[in-house]
Amino acid sequence: MSGRLTVVGLGPGAARQMTPEAAEAVAAADILFGYAPYLARLPERPGQERRASDNREEIARASAALEAAVAGAKVAMVSGGDPGVFAMAAAVCEAIEHGPAEWRALDVEIVPGVTAMLAVAARCGAPLGHDFCAISLSDNLKPWPLVEKRLALAAEAGFVIALYNPISKARPWQLGRAFELLREKLPGSVPVVFGRAAARALGIEVILIARPLAPDVTAVERPAEAEAWLDGILAHGAGAERGA
Amino acid sequence: MSGRLTVVGLGPGAARQMTPEAAEAVAAADILFGYAPYLARLPERPGQERRASDNREEIARASAALEAAVAGAKVAMVSGGDPGVFAMAAAVCEAIEHGPAEWRALDVEIVPGVTAMLAVAARCGAPLGHDFCAISLSDNLKPWPLVEKRLALAAEAGFVIALYNPISKARPWQLGRAFELLREKLPGSVPVVFGRAAARALGIEVILIARPLAPDVTAVERPAEAEAWLDGILAHGAGAERGA
Repeated sequence: MSGRLTVVGLGPGAARQMTPEAAEAVAAADILFGYAPYLARLPERPGQERRASDNREEIARASAALEAAVAGAKVAMVSGGDPGVFAMAAAVCEAIEHGPAEWRALDVEIVPGVTAMLAVAARCGAPLGHDFCAISLSDNLKPWPLVEKRLALAAEAGFVIALYNPISKARPWQLGRAFELLREKLPGSVPVVFGRAAARALGIEVILIARPLAPDVTAVERPAEAEAWLDGILAHGAGAERGA
Repeated sequence: MSGRLTVVGLGPGAARQMTPEAAEAVAAADILFGYAPYLARLPERPGQERRASDNREEIARASAALEAAVAGAKVAMVSGGDPGVFAMAAAVCEAIEHGPAEWRALDVEIVPGVTAMLAVAARCGAPLGHDFCAISLSDNLKPWPLVEKRLALAAEAGFVIALYNPISKARPWQLGRAFELLREKLPGSVPVVFGRAAARALGIEVILIARPLAPDVTAVERPAEAEAWLDGILAHGAGAERGA
């Protein structure tokens, strides 16, 4: 079979934060699949086809990419950050698991990238220098009570917490509820870092609930476009110091 | 002040997995500091000085790098993977916090990289596609009972667990104790992935305690040089299926 599928992590946004391995995989593809804002980061190349899709259609997008690869194309499926962290690699693996046998015979490769929490952490010292966890606040793939259980146990463990998929139009209340829960468990001095995605359309991509950082090396970001919903959430007290 | 310090993540090993941003920071440096096996990955450049050190001397190495930067040099401190994940960024921040005021006036930048767990996960499907945590088994910077508490809470939360700094000559029994504890908490069907570092000298760099993966996309690695100590640990039953 001549087709293949490469699931590629584009990194946190800037071209200089994308690995050469990822850039080569993108350049070598006949067809690029991905969420439109990620595809928009990449230079157009004559003869290369693009199939942009909505961010919520992960399994459908994975299936379409696998079908194109089975038909003989060199397919790259792009993700922001790392494709293995709450991104397309899991959807591709799931589609393969439940799909036709010919999908399992395909040559599938996953190219890692710098995930959002690493890029955000690098801009504010070293909040991930000690034990940490990453929790997706999306309850599309798991029940919400499991998210609450994990937040509570993470706080009890003293993990620095990276929240992925913190908020969306379809999930407007989950972040407020998460802050409410964490406020009961953590001291008010715990800093909260709001990490904005490089692609503006994505808004807030990751939030770090960190241990206190060294004052002189801390930068706390609070992006302007987040003011409205943050004000709504934080007006009730997030138990968190948002810094300068 | 003309000097500056850049803390650079070299990624998991291969040059094509290092970001252009990291490669540029390394190329621009007058002096490279780092653990010898990381420095050995980088091409020699005339006029660029190298100061290799032992992996255990993190604060001393950070202080030496800060002193060189204060003296006017462009200094790059290199780490494998991402410098913020159990690596040099935390040591640099800590040194700055407790050091002289002039260190706080320095221009310090952290360049993120692909950390080991992302690279290992990419080779075996998508074990980090759902909530996960990263725990260092080193008890140099925290008491061992805290490690045990975190392992127990992570298992209770159902996190996929990435174990960093799993074993060393100075810490020979901790990994066995961690497996013993996790064996009590997790079903025997949970796969364990042993991720080998690109730099052979480093041995096993990260271990993923994963949820069951799709059988057709799973690759479980067990590096030959780890046989001796793994046999010792696993002979007593790790409660873990190690796969093919």
